[in-house]
Amino acid sequence: MVRGKPQWGLKVRVWVERDGRKVLGPGRIELLEHIIRLRSISAAAKEMGMSYRRAWELVQDMNEAAGVTLVEASPGGAGGGGATVTPHGHEAIRLYRSLMTRFNEAAEETTLSDNPLSITPNTE
Amino acid sequence: MVRGKPQWGLKVRVWVERDGRKVLGPGRIELLEHIIRLRSISAAAKEMGMSYRRAWELVQDMNEAAGVTLVEASPGGAGGGGATVTPHGHEAIRLYRSLMTRFNEAAEETTLSDNPLSITPNTE
Repeated sequence: MVRGKPQWGLKVRVWVERDGRKVLGPGRIELLEHIIRLRSISAAAKEMGMSYRRAWELVQDMNEAAGVTLVEASPGGAGGGGATVTPHGHEAIRLYRSLMTRFNEAAEETTLSDNPLSITPNTE
Repeated sequence: MVRGKPQWGLKVRVWVERDGRKVLGPGRIELLEHIIRLRSISAAAKEMGMSYRRAWELVQDMNEAAGVTLVEASPGGAGGGGATVTPHGHEAIRLYRSLMTRFNEAAEETTLSDNPLSITPNTE
């Protein structure tokens, strides 16, 4: 990006919690999306450069934290069994996307000055 | 937190960028705050369980990305020299805190239903 003036902006990330415990965040949503496409936790883990164990733990934690099953995994052999994202899981993706849209819009609408770290008189 | 109904909520994090390059985020602001208190990058690094090298790189990256000096470090011996957070650095902390307040309020005001992952009819 080449411009005359440096452009200041914001990035924002959102996590959904239940009783203070993380349910959904960017990584978990990405994992859900890969599981929908690949129907397998191990294939989704591979896609994300994550160990199968880590992906499995994330799925278990998401299910427990949500209080409803987001991913149904069938036990499998060495390659891992199949996995299905439930309607609750699809709802989780919809909810998260709508929140991201809202907060990304808020971030884009937050106007920083051309020089937001310039020294302002201390009025305290 | 023991309640009758599980409470759903949001957590949000914000990063400030300049020309798409990260300038400020939660870790960098925490580092600035420790440097103000301890007047030393190495002591601040220790406080955060971070290597001196990592803290030094963060400071360099922050200064470069901001386009103004946020931390002035004087070269030192084995223990590292002294470091001062400049008025621009103090302004950075003020800016970041005001953004966090705004986005935390937005997160608190975002009402999730009692059961936000319940299955809704698909109207598409």
